[in-house]
Amino acid sequence: MKNVSKSTILVQLDSDPQPSVFDSVVAVDSGAEQLFRHGGVTDAQVRDLVYGAMFTRGPDELHRTAVFVGGSNVLAAEHLFAKVRECFFGPMRVSVMLDPNGANTTAAAAVLAAARHVPLAGATALILAGTGPVGQRVARLLARQGAAVRIGSRARDRASEACGEIHSYFPEAKLQPHETVTSAGRQAALDGAEIVIAAGAPGVELLAASEREASSTLRVAIDLSAVPPAGLEGVDMHDKAQQRGNALCYGALGVGGAKMKIHKSALAQLFTRNDLALDAEEIYAIGAALESA
Amino acid sequence: MKNVSKSTILVQLDSDPQPSVFDSVVAVDSGAEQLFRHGGVTDAQVRDLVYGAMFTRGPDELHRTAVFVGGSNVLAAEHLFAKVRECFFGPMRVSVMLDPNGANTTAAAAVLAAARHVPLAGATALILAGTGPVGQRVARLLARQGAAVRIGSRARDRASEACGEIHSYFPEAKLQPHETVTSAGRQAALDGAEIVIAAGAPGVELLAASEREASSTLRVAIDLSAVPPAGLEGVDMHDKAQQRGNALCYGALGVGGAKMKIHKSALAQLFTRNDLALDAEEIYAIGAALESA
Amino acid sequence: MKNVSKSTILVQLDSDPQPSVFDSVVAVDSGAEQLFRHGGVTDAQVRDLVYGAMFTRGPDELHRTAVFVGGSNVLAAEHLFAKVRECFFGPMRVSVMLDPNGANTTAAAAVLAAARHVPLAGATALILAGTGPVGQRVARLLARQGAAVRIGSRARDRASEACGEIHSYFPEAKLQPHETVTSAGRQAALDGAEIVIAAGAPGVELLAASEREASSTLRVAIDLSAVPPAGLEGVDMHDKAQQRGNALCYGALGVGGAKMKIHKSALAQLFTRNDLALDAEEIYAIGAALESA
Repeated sequence: MKNVSKSTILVQLDSDPQPSVFDSVVAVDSGAEQLFRHGGVTDAQVRDLVYGAMFTRGPDELHRTAVFVGGSNVLAAEHLFAKVRECFFGPMRVSVMLDPNGANTTAAAAVLAAARHVPLAGATALILAGTGPVGQRVARLLARQGAAVRIGSRARDRASEACGEIHSYFPEAKLQPHETVTSAGRQAALDGAEIVIAAGAPGVELLAASEREASSTLRVAIDLSAVPPAGLEGVDMHDKAQQRGNALCYGALGVGGAKMKIHKSALAQLFTRNDLALDAEEIYAIGAALESA
Repeated sequence: MKNVSKSTILVQLDSDPQPSVFDSVVAVDSGAEQLFRHGGVTDAQVRDLVYGAMFTRGPDELHRTAVFVGGSNVLAAEHLFAKVRECFFGPMRVSVMLDPNGANTTAAAAVLAAARHVPLAGATALILAGTGPVGQRVARLLARQGAAVRIGSRARDRASEACGEIHSYFPEAKLQPHETVTSAGRQAALDGAEIVIAAGAPGVELLAASEREASSTLRVAIDLSAVPPAGLEGVDMHDKAQQRGNALCYGALGVGGAKMKIHKSALAQLFTRNDLALDAEEIYAIGAALESA
Repeated sequence: MKNVSKSTILVQLDSDPQPSVFDSVVAVDSGAEQLFRHGGVTDAQVRDLVYGAMFTRGPDELHRTAVFVGGSNVLAAEHLFAKVRECFFGPMRVSVMLDPNGANTTAAAAVLAAARHVPLAGATALILAGTGPVGQRVARLLARQGAAVRIGSRARDRASEACGEIHSYFPEAKLQPHETVTSAGRQAALDGAEIVIAAGAPGVELLAASEREASSTLRVAIDLSAVPPAGLEGVDMHDKAQQRGNALCYGALGVGGAKMKIHKSALAQLFTRNDLALDAEEIYAIGAALESA
């Protein structure tokens, strides 16, 4: 038997019935040599799958196998990610990345775009639709960089709940819940903010152009929706630091290039060691390193 | 991160619970470097899968990703194929090939075999079991080459329906429905025909050897069934332009070599551009180019 | 179209909903260039999958495609393995290996470990939990090497049944059923035995250290459980020919290195010819060849 050098293997775990083609293409383009694609993965199935990754190669080669947790259901993916990490003990582990629906890489790219124009420490940022999986991640990342973060939602109660969840990740976060379904609510939420990021469902307008333009403090406006109509009226999905009124604007595609670079760089790093666990914060750090490189 | 050159990726969509190993082996042998295999694919799942193929690589590299729609259920595959094409807009598209159960490549190989011996324009051809997915494709291809095509079926009504469906693909087709379950019906359907092609279910005899040999006009007889007994009695599945009575005969394996070449050539072409949609007619053209090369 | 050289393809059939990552990693590390992974495989699906492997490449290239049957359910895998072999006829076949839950490679490695220290022909061996899939395979292999084998079980009836099943594989086997749930039963079963192998469920102690040490004839003690507490009390899972009392002891990890080598060597051999069918006995022979190499 010839001596076969070990390929890099990415085990893709997806809670959707069909594993994501998007995630698989990016994995292949990031250099993963073998892709084991699993759809419809349940919490109960994780252990055997991850043990298969942990107990097949020697300790010196564990960094050549890694796990990616994706899928359109962010909550389900977070559970799978937790189950994956429960399998590890001592040095017996493989690196793992969480990026369901691109939530972590998108949030990282959005916050890095804002950071290009506004020092985040001490800034005030409003996240529209801040209760969803991307919005919460954006909030976490901004808060960790020292920004005061306002979580906007249709109902103030839901915004408060989201603040609670974000606190559980980062207790020092400066957070404020806001109702942003009324124009009065939006005006209050925007008052004094330098950054606004729309993280809502595709095709739902969250802020009128006139409201955005009425702000004298706003410097960066980022819309993460790629489906018309825009979340931020008047922001084009191709915008990339496009001046509109007082603010530099970004659309989903304008952020998409950086998002893809972060995604690929994070995947490539999985194979450099066997003890990485890449969630929003770690992926943001990888993106920040790319920006400063 | 090293600069990784883009692999060719084939996304295999199959409505069967297990994606076809046959299609996968041919894909690998045609040079597809990465194969994303999906079984149990439903119409509702197509969009996300195809968007994943469309939105991951740059416009200049879209021709390195393609979609293959297969599976044993031809009707289900046709629906998936239509859904795939609905995802495209403007230049945002990838090439796609339809070949469920080998229906398109088999039909193309059969018609090309006939064309080696009889000029198709003006010829008269009888398709036994012409109402099925392979039979209808054979009829479409013959009609487009200018042949007058007789569709044989157990019931004249079903043959008429099939003629209607074929007309929806090619309105100029010269088509005639025939009942071929009685010996009188078969005799009428064969009267004056130069070509007979049997496209029935495996193991069902459609024409007696004596009936075939009684025709003075028949020049080519092709049986596409690979399971005994033969669809055309007396034709061996290995026949390849084998003289039997007045006619040159082909069996399923005699046509199979050309079918496989067409299948592989079509797959390889998918990666030459990003706007191919290969159904029966396009696959026939690829086969014709191979014959004349 | 360029001339593409044929990759080696392993078709992995697994009755579990998710195909085993363990088996896939070992396959990749053994040099299989393409892996077609199928989970949730049922008996009824085998034919189409195997036909796809048999009917795509020429007779000269059939040895470049092979089938691996795995999964955690040994009984289900045995049925799949039988179905795979029913697909073959004459020279139309591909090589196939059965190793559900590692049962065959583990049994081979355990018996080869024993053979390093005790000539098996004429030896007496006790298999604790000898009624399970690994235990029965250990018994078959020992019996074929000429050992007298005692099958231990909680109930003598079940041990007798297992003896019957083993006889169906190897009618000349010298077998004796033993109840080993009482200390008197264990003492009788151990009396005069040179080899004891524990093949029980993880975390179930089958023999006390004092019982093992009380034997004056025992020379090799092998525990195949990798989950504490040990099946053989006092044997460490890392033991590899470790002297404890009169016996040289092996734990699951001490046997694991040889098991992995056998697994990889067997996979690599699949691609050397197209007519191998590797069950316990054939895999043992591959392991024996590795030991003597």
